[in-house]
Amino acid sequence: MAQAFQAVDPNFEARVRDSFARQGAMRLIGAGMTRIEPGYCEIELPYREDLTQQHGLFHGGFVSAIADTAGGYAAYSLFPAEDSILTVEYKINLLAPGAGDKLVASARVKKTGKTLTVCELEVLAMKRDGQTLCACGLATLIRLAGRADRPRAE
Amino acid sequence: MAQAFQAVDPNFEARVRDSFARQGAMRLIGAGMTRIEPGYCEIELPYREDLTQQHGLFHGGFVSAIADTAGGYAAYSLFPAEDSILTVEYKINLLAPGAGDKLVASARVKKTGKTLTVCELEVLAMKRDGQTLCACGLATLIRLAGRADRPRAE
Amino acid sequence: MAQAFQAVDPNFEARVRDSFARQGAMRLIGAGMTRIEPGYCEIELPYREDLTQQHGLFHGGFVSAIADTAGGYAAYSLFPAEDSILTVEYKINLLAPGAGDKLVASARVKKTGKTLTVCELEVLAMKRDGQTLCACGLATLIRLAGRADRPRAE
Amino acid sequence: MAQAFQAVDPNFEARVRDSFARQGAMRLIGAGMTRIEPGYCEIELPYREDLTQQHGLFHGGFVSAIADTAGGYAAYSLFPAEDSILTVEYKINLLAPGAGDKLVASARVKKTGKTLTVCELEVLAMKRDGQTLCACGLATLIRLAGRADRPRAE
Repeated sequence: MAQAFQAVDPNFEARVRDSFARQGAMRLIGAGMTRIEPGYCEIELPYREDLTQQHGLFHGGFVSAIADTAGGYAAYSLFPAEDSILTVEYKINLLAPGAGDKLVASARVKKTGKTLTVCELEVLAMKRDGQTLCACGLATLIRLAGRADRPRAE
Repeated sequence: MAQAFQAVDPNFEARVRDSFARQGAMRLIGAGMTRIEPGYCEIELPYREDLTQQHGLFHGGFVSAIADTAGGYAAYSLFPAEDSILTVEYKINLLAPGAGDKLVASARVKKTGKTLTVCELEVLAMKRDGQTLCACGLATLIRLAGRADRPRAE
Repeated sequence: MAQAFQAVDPNFEARVRDSFARQGAMRLIGAGMTRIEPGYCEIELPYREDLTQQHGLFHGGFVSAIADTAGGYAAYSLFPAEDSILTVEYKINLLAPGAGDKLVASARVKKTGKTLTVCELEVLAMKRDGQTLCACGLATLIRLAGRADRPRAE
Repeated sequence: MAQAFQAVDPNFEARVRDSFARQGAMRLIGAGMTRIEPGYCEIELPYREDLTQQHGLFHGGFVSAIADTAGGYAAYSLFPAEDSILTVEYKINLLAPGAGDKLVASARVKKTGKTLTVCELEVLAMKRDGQTLCACGLATLIRLAGRADRPRAE
């Protein structure tokens, strides 16, 4: 029952990937954007020891960070080129420990309006022998009309 | 109207700080625990370029990561030494851009029960000329009775 | 990709419907349980003028009330007969005004564990000429093992 | 550390109370607005048997309904007379059973901006011998600039 969305900006993919590439935070943790479609985004995070909490598993803060980021770009994919986006809020349930070789966060737009967009978030923990639903959430994002997605100093 | 809590474990501070020190994730981003009291915790995150989103501000994922971590330790400070803790879920509102020299996340226990604890979260963005409330949230945590806060492999 | 659940209690349907029938609140607003399956529940609320907010549409509080109740019973359907359930927390996005002849809230279990269960919530507003996704949410519920679902005075 | 707000509309109280009085839902459950100040609102709900869940306590849906409504009016009190308001989303933790003679929901604005306002919600359950913090939450609301708070048919 997932809705199909159309991108109004034909260059949405390049625009989204360029914005993602400018996120120092995603580079620091080694996250990569593996899929971007109109209203849908996937971000992967391979395991590293410096991404862990005190039990040696993926830190919940990074589980959320990639889910939140996927939500932002799923929404942003549907925007015209001259707009930018901010996360208003999100809620995330950490359903299972982040144990695995990598995490895959996906975000799907549930509803997009003139001002607000709501995305559904999921994070899977991938192991050799299967996958576990490790988190699910909902994010609300706001469109900043007519403000390009660039640092202010530029 | 904040409630005063008593720690049942007299060594709660050492126990909390030791657990925090084992979080590879917090080391990676350069976060430090600046205050821990029964039912209260503060974590600071100094600005670095590799902690940013595409506009050069603190990435929302890290705003959340330190808030979530502060919530975990605020709750954990109240537990007996033989228990550990997991975040069940949290919700965070990103009220203002994470612009400043450092972030200060604080968490205060609202209610602690046999199984669940709820914390109030706030993140301030500190600049030379003042501070901004950059995020607020609520987190639910679960106590794992009788399971020490150690990696499973140990 | 929805998971199929098995009810451990063969009489889960009678147990759930009996519990629902004891909710004065659901009677007051005229809500009815239209479907209950293992891990899934639907509750309908026909329009009445006394269910409205100041614009004459369904009040958001009742949108939430039936969503929350559906979440509780979706989870409760999977429990053994001797347990009961409480809502820990939920988050709901009110995506569109509650305008229509009736609301249909549905809840589906995402994950059920020994202590906690997480449900996905949706509310549709039904009109003669179609339906609108009016709300979506996530709820966390806790199992009270060995405590029957009855008023304490009994 | 609560912020003091100024109402831009000197008649905010009459405007808020008039809007509240038009909520069929609040009349149905017998809720009353007991306090309205700039950025702050209190709503009370006296106990009635038809407001209960299956254990004879206040139904969580009504706990939320009055908290959500208080949040809406706390925010709305700060708006100019020609604007109206919608709840975007909220999250609520049901911390203790709704057991008592009445519930008192209070909402306080944490941050108000051009488009969005965030409120902190609390619900107390009042008994003869004391009070219990029964719920806490956070709500996000959106301002509809230039749209009066009236049913569309008018």
